[in-house]
Amino acid sequence: MHKLHVVKIGGNLIENQKDLSRALSAFSSMDGHKILVHGGGKRTTEICNQLGIPAKMHNGRRITDDAALEVAVMVYAGWANKKIVAELQKNKLNVLGVTGADLNMIQAKKRPVTEIDYGWAGDVVKVNRTVIKKLLTDKMDLVFCAITHDQQGQLLNTNADTIAAEIASAMTSDFEVHLHYCFEKKGVLMDVNDSGSVIEHIRKDELTALQKNKIIADGMLPKLHNCFYALENGVQKVFVGNTDMLENENTLKTSLTL
Amino acid sequence: MHKLHVVKIGGNLIENQKDLSRALSAFSSMDGHKILVHGGGKRTTEICNQLGIPAKMHNGRRITDDAALEVAVMVYAGWANKKIVAELQKNKLNVLGVTGADLNMIQAKKRPVTEIDYGWAGDVVKVNRTVIKKLLTDKMDLVFCAITHDQQGQLLNTNADTIAAEIASAMTSDFEVHLHYCFEKKGVLMDVNDSGSVIEHIRKDELTALQKNKIIADGMLPKLHNCFYALENGVQKVFVGNTDMLENENTLKTSLTL
Repeated sequence: MHKLHVVKIGGNLIENQKDLSRALSAFSSMDGHKILVHGGGKRTTEICNQLGIPAKMHNGRRITDDAALEVAVMVYAGWANKKIVAELQKNKLNVLGVTGADLNMIQAKKRPVTEIDYGWAGDVVKVNRTVIKKLLTDKMDLVFCAITHDQQGQLLNTNADTIAAEIASAMTSDFEVHLHYCFEKKGVLMDVNDSGSVIEHIRKDELTALQKNKIIADGMLPKLHNCFYALENGVQKVFVGNTDMLENENTLKTSLTL
Repeated sequence: MHKLHVVKIGGNLIENQKDLSRALSAFSSMDGHKILVHGGGKRTTEICNQLGIPAKMHNGRRITDDAALEVAVMVYAGWANKKIVAELQKNKLNVLGVTGADLNMIQAKKRPVTEIDYGWAGDVVKVNRTVIKKLLTDKMDLVFCAITHDQQGQLLNTNADTIAAEIASAMTSDFEVHLHYCFEKKGVLMDVNDSGSVIEHIRKDELTALQKNKIIADGMLPKLHNCFYALENGVQKVFVGNTDMLENENTLKTSLTL
């Protein structure tokens, strides 16, 4: 089976031209088929602030009302996605930038209202692996932003880590899939204040202990759940680290295994 | 040869959900392959105003500085393009929303600086007809926004009428191409104050007289130049009118011929 790299990058990378260029250059040089997944980073919050759209939050999660959805779609699918596409085209990588609405590649549904209504937040229903396989096989690599749709005309804001895990999982019947979660740190840290304290391997059965000892919490926990979800669905390798790991596979990082 | 409809719609349509839905429903029902081309309309100006980005103009043309380019890409490639894509997916039309940077479909170059520097305004260099033909033949219809790139990593703001004419012209070796320019009026008017005074046919040799008699001026002149450019490049039919003409081919409109 051919190899497919699914790489998630943090949206904040887009604000730093030098770091972005370097990461995209490394991405362009990776072997096999490639899918990049990104969000919009701080720019979304900045534009919302400048437009006077108040940030509605619940437990650290943003509530996506009409105005916030418009900004998310503008920043993710517009500026961030096309800036990345133009930069990759410069590297002669034949990429296509998309949302889940394009070719109905990721169908989602509005998150059900419980005590809280998250607005236009979307949970993934189905990844269209047939069309993604066709594009990749026809030598078109893909850049996904974290926007999906419900097939009823509604765009939805979806977590980029989740999209990366869902795409990676969906493509395992057709490719040997490696999933790379890039963020600003070198990996999952034993001590959050010591950037060198990277945990090199985490097995799924170690997760509970790491959580109990407060080593893994906050934003890292859902990321690791996505990692193990992908592994359980047949993704061959899953890594968490910074973009250096795209350049050199011997870079210090965290490898996840079942 | 199979038929290909290239339809340009005005960006302002995007702000009126009812008119947009009706136009996209008519577009979805057209026979043959389909390409929609759109700009961003008033929303770009509104967002620029809200963000405090001054509108720099020269002879009625906007000068695209860095800040204006970011807004254009956000509105055209982000909100407008994806809103249209989601609505067409609801109609079960299998569309892909793109800029000229995606799959390097439209390469452009920064407009040369003469007395005036238009900033990041791009003139079309080449339409990649091979990849467009492949996508259409594989049953993917396309939604182009008026953003291109220079293949050196720079996104460019390009006139949507010109993009429609260039795409239509490029595809004539592979398809029987019909080009439809939709705007708010029923066609080119003999008297701008009489919405019923539609000129039903305009031959190229009549253009000079119409111009001399001040019947055609301002924004209409470059649009008609695009129409005749397309006809000269083998486009079979060119129409100017409102979106009713997409629904019913007997609708009153202006037909252009050489």
